[in-house]
Amino acid sequence: MYRGKAREVLKGIEVGDRINVKKGDRVFEGLLMPRSELGDENHIVIKLDTGYNVGINVKKIKIKRIKKATPPKKTKDRAVKFKDLPDVTIIGTGGTIASKIDYKTGAVHPSFTTSELTNAIPELNDLANIKTKLLFNILSENMTPEYWKDIARAVAAELNSGASGVVVAHGTDTMAYTSAALSFMLKNLKKPVALAGSQRSSDRPSSDSSLNLVSAVKVALSDIGEVVVVMHGSSSDDYCLIHRGTKVRKMHSSRRDAFGSVNAAPIGRVKDVVIIDRDYRERGSGKVTVDDKLDENVALVKIYPGIKSEVLDYCIDRYNGIVLEGTGLGHVPENLLPSIKSAKKKGVPVVMTTQTLYGRVDMKVYSTGRELLSMGVISGMDMLPEVAYVKLMHVLGSTKDLDEVKRMMQTNIAGEIEETTAF
Amino acid sequence: MYRGKAREVLKGIEVGDRINVKKGDRVFEGLLMPRSELGDENHIVIKLDTGYNVGINVKKIKIKRIKKATPPKKTKDRAVKFKDLPDVTIIGTGGTIASKIDYKTGAVHPSFTTSELTNAIPELNDLANIKTKLLFNILSENMTPEYWKDIARAVAAELNSGASGVVVAHGTDTMAYTSAALSFMLKNLKKPVALAGSQRSSDRPSSDSSLNLVSAVKVALSDIGEVVVVMHGSSSDDYCLIHRGTKVRKMHSSRRDAFGSVNAAPIGRVKDVVIIDRDYRERGSGKVTVDDKLDENVALVKIYPGIKSEVLDYCIDRYNGIVLEGTGLGHVPENLLPSIKSAKKKGVPVVMTTQTLYGRVDMKVYSTGRELLSMGVISGMDMLPEVAYVKLMHVLGSTKDLDEVKRMMQTNIAGEIEETTAF
Repeated sequence: MYRGKAREVLKGIEVGDRINVKKGDRVFEGLLMPRSELGDENHIVIKLDTGYNVGINVKKIKIKRIKKATPPKKTKDRAVKFKDLPDVTIIGTGGTIASKIDYKTGAVHPSFTTSELTNAIPELNDLANIKTKLLFNILSENMTPEYWKDIARAVAAELNSGASGVVVAHGTDTMAYTSAALSFMLKNLKKPVALAGSQRSSDRPSSDSSLNLVSAVKVALSDIGEVVVVMHGSSSDDYCLIHRGTKVRKMHSSRRDAFGSVNAAPIGRVKDVVIIDRDYRERGSGKVTVDDKLDENVALVKIYPGIKSEVLDYCIDRYNGIVLEGTGLGHVPENLLPSIKSAKKKGVPVVMTTQTLYGRVDMKVYSTGRELLSMGVISGMDMLPEVAYVKLMHVLGSTKDLDEVKRMMQTNIAGEIEETTAF
Repeated sequence: MYRGKAREVLKGIEVGDRINVKKGDRVFEGLLMPRSELGDENHIVIKLDTGYNVGINVKKIKIKRIKKATPPKKTKDRAVKFKDLPDVTIIGTGGTIASKIDYKTGAVHPSFTTSELTNAIPELNDLANIKTKLLFNILSENMTPEYWKDIARAVAAELNSGASGVVVAHGTDTMAYTSAALSFMLKNLKKPVALAGSQRSSDRPSSDSSLNLVSAVKVALSDIGEVVVVMHGSSSDDYCLIHRGTKVRKMHSSRRDAFGSVNAAPIGRVKDVVIIDRDYRERGSGKVTVDDKLDENVALVKIYPGIKSEVLDYCIDRYNGIVLEGTGLGHVPENLLPSIKSAKKKGVPVVMTTQTLYGRVDMKVYSTGRELLSMGVISGMDMLPEVAYVKLMHVLGSTKDLDEVKRMMQTNIAGEIEETTAF
């Protein structure tokens, strides 16, 4: 994987080999990492035993191999069953979290088997009988409603086969959309479904995948019968927050504590143990079912000063439902009002959310809002725009009747609507 | 303005009259307020001398008038000039802040004259020679790029006529878009331009307009030569934050401290006096000019799982520039890549921002980002999507050359790009 000068210096040494590097007075020992995606031809990266990666310029260095990389075992993957521990299935969908783990073992092929996972994070074996299932391997920006259905079916199958809970390893970009989709699609859910990911790409130090995954497994064993996102709660590697799947949002592009609960307190924390901080749906019995009827003809349109009505008209003509990301308490500029009026005539529901993200939509306060209400616009209440978008797909999957759509959109299904806004 | 039972009970008493209300054992005295927009026919609202509004059910109450409302003066508005104080012009554009002020005087017609303003907030006269100018009176959701130009010209005219600084009273919904627009359009700005608004509609207690306006006037007298937003810094009525005009966003639909600086520390605070907390452009001399060339054919498109390429194609065909609100570090699903490729061919710049809002765009980390970069997508760095949208209008107003557009978008003009992300 290395090129140019770095490749020359490495000669026969391969990624995953344990090496000793001398550069001037300094000596480094550790595993040769794959070339950083940002790397040039002049550096190699090794992972030190402290867990940190270091980039070293290959100019005037001496390298010797200490130990060859452990080749990936060709044996059939098989979970070791400990009789007295509950079962947790970790479903892989791709993203940074899946590839990261392998690096610690020195085996760098991007796969996701139980033995690799538990070799990398032995603590998992103390918690549960871990079983892994790589459903697919995609970057989460390429997640689609079709994939949501696959994940929902896989989760239900595992839970109905006796798993105590399921962890879904997922890229972070669209994790919150998927957690909302699973929240709506998994009916009669009485067991934990914990999504976890990793914010730091595999070639950077200070991995967050281990803590997120271990914490998610702990949540999967907990009393919470809901879909949740389990990710770092601070920029240190000290604890994770448990966010309700319908109230969470990726709020930072790169920080480890990128995820935040919006318009709701997190359900709890994982700091060694699972700590509950608010009301939640408790674990129960009964089979979970999957309602995978989604109407994918829904558009999410952001409102801004200078927006032309033609974009909205285009969407109203082609889609079965529109979610607006309005301003303030749920407003749009007056030039859009004729389009919104036409939506009602065409039977296309228009749901209002707010681009402030925090706070509720309240269209009764100002005249613009009242006019929108009179045109049949449905208040998204305290739902995030992204959650309202996913929910409208779900609702339109079962009815096209405008009154029923309104009723369902404004009825809490999976914690997406709080009675009062706490924040 | 009152209807039904409330109207009957009030008989000849009019809004603005000072009244005494007896209900059971309790006695209330204060000004009769206009009927709450949410109010029913069974309540009246009076403003107590403490400044708080109270709603009283009209059942079994006794009302007597203490004093008739002061009728609005018909005399020509005229600012009182105190020789030893600097001049500050408050430009009114509409929104909650303009109407609120009148309520304190008991005169309820929605106007915005200097004498009314200084009668309502006498403290203003101690700070500066206040002059007001009602430019127009619109709800800020109806703000357009054309109005931005009017505001920019009015601000420049006042500053170039000797005003120490200008306050722009503005509705909160789109205040941050306007502050960004003014930041880009006002060239060689060396004096403070402070936007202030009010989050609480006039019929609610705990007004925030007074503190925001007084604080904004203090900022207008300060050493800061920039466009800033001055709004509550906490949910109490205790201090205001000074946000850079290009780094601020409305982050809550209803809280008084709705505005937050994103990817930048606020410039400072106003707590009695102006306190500076970070680097800023200092006050200087020289005339401010207005660059009001804006290309309004720019679209802001939010990315989400399941988005169809046709919406993006539609925008690329009709607009001169596109700002994407991508996921994570600046990604889009792969089905949009052909559209983005076509944009380059058509000479339409595509700027990437992130829907996480916090954090920088960095398209070099993952393969999706690198592919977008290779297609000519311009990184919006740490600019908010809304700010990148306004800036692209501004940049396309002076050039259509793709390389020059990229260079200008990635060059800091008015504090919109920070070298490193602090948060």
